[in-house]
Amino acid sequence: MTQTAVVVGAGLVGASVGAALARAGWQVHLEDAVATHALVAASRGSGVVAPADPEAVDLVVVATPPEVVAEQVVDALQRFGRAVVTDVASVKGPIIEQVRSRVRADRFVPSHPMAGSALTGPLTAEANLFEDRTWVVTPLPENDAASVQLVCRAAAQCGAAVVELDPDEHDRAVAQVSHTPHLMSILTASNLRRVEATHLDLAGQGIRDVTRVAGSDPVLWRQILFANRDAVREQLRQVRADLDELLQVLDQPEALQGFLERGRRGARSLPGKHGSAQVPTVEVTIEIPDTPGALARLFTDIERAGVNVEDLTINHDPRRQVGFLAVEVGQQAAAPLAEEMRLAGWTVR
Amino acid sequence: MTQTAVVVGAGLVGASVGAALARAGWQVHLEDAVATHALVAASRGSGVVAPADPEAVDLVVVATPPEVVAEQVVDALQRFGRAVVTDVASVKGPIIEQVRSRVRADRFVPSHPMAGSALTGPLTAEANLFEDRTWVVTPLPENDAASVQLVCRAAAQCGAAVVELDPDEHDRAVAQVSHTPHLMSILTASNLRRVEATHLDLAGQGIRDVTRVAGSDPVLWRQILFANRDAVREQLRQVRADLDELLQVLDQPEALQGFLERGRRGARSLPGKHGSAQVPTVEVTIEIPDTPGALARLFTDIERAGVNVEDLTINHDPRRQVGFLAVEVGQQAAAPLAEEMRLAGWTVR
Repeated sequence: MTQTAVVVGAGLVGASVGAALARAGWQVHLEDAVATHALVAASRGSGVVAPADPEAVDLVVVATPPEVVAEQVVDALQRFGRAVVTDVASVKGPIIEQVRSRVRADRFVPSHPMAGSALTGPLTAEANLFEDRTWVVTPLPENDAASVQLVCRAAAQCGAAVVELDPDEHDRAVAQVSHTPHLMSILTASNLRRVEATHLDLAGQGIRDVTRVAGSDPVLWRQILFANRDAVREQLRQVRADLDELLQVLDQPEALQGFLERGRRGARSLPGKHGSAQVPTVEVTIEIPDTPGALARLFTDIERAGVNVEDLTINHDPRRQVGFLAVEVGQQAAAPLAEEMRLAGWTVR
Repeated sequence: MTQTAVVVGAGLVGASVGAALARAGWQVHLEDAVATHALVAASRGSGVVAPADPEAVDLVVVATPPEVVAEQVVDALQRFGRAVVTDVASVKGPIIEQVRSRVRADRFVPSHPMAGSALTGPLTAEANLFEDRTWVVTPLPENDAASVQLVCRAAAQCGAAVVELDPDEHDRAVAQVSHTPHLMSILTASNLRRVEATHLDLAGQGIRDVTRVAGSDPVLWRQILFANRDAVREQLRQVRADLDELLQVLDQPEALQGFLERGRRGARSLPGKHGSAQVPTVEVTIEIPDTPGALARLFTDIERAGVNVEDLTINHDPRRQVGFLAVEVGQQAAAPLAEEMRLAGWTVR
C-alpha cells in the first residue's frame, strides 16, 4: 500500500527528501510558504503541490528554516491527526522544548539528516542527497515504537544510514563536529578583512578548503548557532584554551610539532567519506634495486597487480644505501600484492 | 642554447620543478641527501642524477626542507660560481638573514611557488604542479636585474604567474593566507580529541574540508611556522580577539548574523581557483509563468543556450504572486542568453 508524506518547506533538504521518498514509492505532497518553491520542487520530481487528504497522511517532514520548525511541527500535528511528524533541523533541544510546551509530542519524532550543501533552494535538490549519509533520529520518551520505526524506515528509504541518539547528545555532537568547525571557517575567512587585496593572490588550496563553508547562508547558520549556543560556547572556550596553548608553543619547536601532530591525529580520526569507516591499511615494503629503470618496472608491476594503492612512500636504509618503496593498501589486498610482487621477482620485506 | 639547472632536494616541489624545467627544455640535474629520492625523481622525468659541470650551471633551485635551505643556498653559491641560486621555501626573512650573514647574497634571488599538496616525496611530483599558480619572487637590493629576470623566467616556464614582493611583505602575506589558516585547521582537528568516537559518524563535508590541511606533514609545518612565528603570532592574536567577540555575540542573533556575514565576505574575497580572478557575473532574470511544465521547458531552453550557469535562484514577487528565475552568468554571456530566451518566448526582465 502506498504511503503518503507531506513535506513542509521545499528548499534544498525538503525537496530532496520529497524526491527521495517519491523515488522509494511514497506519495509526496509539497508545501512551501513561497508557492514558487513548491512548484519548482514539483516540476523536478519531488512530489505534487495538490493538498493531501489530512486523514491519509502517514508522515510529515518539516524542512523549513530552523526558526519556524517548532511552530510548523505543532501545526502539522494538529492538521494531520494520525500522522507521525519529523523535522530535519540541525539542533533538537529547543525545538522539542517548544513543541512540548504547546502540544502532546507523542507523534513527533525529531530527526536530523547530516546532509546539505552551501547551496540553497529547490533547484539544488537531488534525490540522492542522503545516500550513505548519516541520518540521526532522536526519539522522545513519549514516542511509541511504531512512530520511531516509521521515521527510521523513511530515512533509510532515502538511502541514509540511520543512527539513534538522545537529543541532548545529538546537540552536543553537532556542536563538536559541525557547528564549531563552521565557526572556525568563519573566523579564518573573517581574518581576511585585514589582508591587502594584492596579497590575496597568494592564497592556495589550503585556505580555500578551510573557508569553503564560511560561504554558507548566514541567516540559516545564525538560526542554527543561536539555537545551539550553549553547546557551541562550551566548544569555543576549549578552542580558545587550545589557541592560548598554541601561542605559547610557537616559540618551542618540539612542543609546536606535538601540537601539529595532535591536529593531524584529529583530522585522521574522522571516518572515511560519506560516513563509511576508514579502511584499515597495511604497508607492503619492496626493495628498490639500484638498476636503471627498476622503479619504472616496479610501478608497472604494482599497477598490474590491480590493487588500490592508498599511499606510497620511499624509505631509505642509510647504512645499506638501499631504498624501499612502502605501498599502503587495504588489509585484504596486502597478502595478494606481496605474493604477486614476489612472483615478479621483487624482494618484499 | 640549452640552459642548465641543478635542483637540490628531489621531494614533491623539487622534483616537480625539475620536471617542469625539463619539459621547458632545460638540462636538469637532481641532487638529494637521500640517493633514492633523486633516482625516483629521475626515473619519473625530473632530470638526471649525474653531477653537473659547475661552470655550466645557470640556475640552482634549493628545494630542501626549510630548516636546511639557508645552508644549502650558501653551499650552492660556493659550488656553482656563476649560477643564480633561488629557493622555494615558504618563509623568506630568516633564510635571507642567514645567507647574508655568511656570504655575499648578490646571486641569491629568493622565491616561493604557492603550490604544494598534503602529499610528500618525489612520487607525488608533477610537471604541471605550478600551472596557473602564483610564484612569488622576492628580489634583494643586491641582486642585479639579470639574475632576478632569470628566476622570474624559470618560474614562468614552469607555468606559474610570477609576482614580485618585498620579502617581509611576503612573509606577512603568507602568515595571513596560508600559515594562520593552516593553524585554524589544526585547532579544529585538534578539538576532535574531545569527541566521543561514535559521534564522529555525524561528521559531514564541512569539517572534512576545514580539517584537510591539518593532515599535512607536521615536521615540514613545524619548520615553516617556527620560521614565521612573529608574523603568525600577530595573526593568531587577531583571531583570538575575533573569537572573544564571537563568544560575546553568540547570544545576540543580529550581531551573530553580522559576524557570519563578515566571514562570508572574507571567503568571497578570495580570488577564483588557481589564482585567476573570479569571473564577474551578472543576473538574467526570467519570469516563470504559472503553467504546467513551464519550468522544465525553461531549464531546457537555458541549457540549449549553452551558457555556463554560475548560480540559479528563484525569486518571488509576493504582491503579484509571480516567480522569477535569476540565472547568474559571466558578464559576456548575459546579453546573448537574454536574447535567446526572448526569442524562445520568455519574459526577461
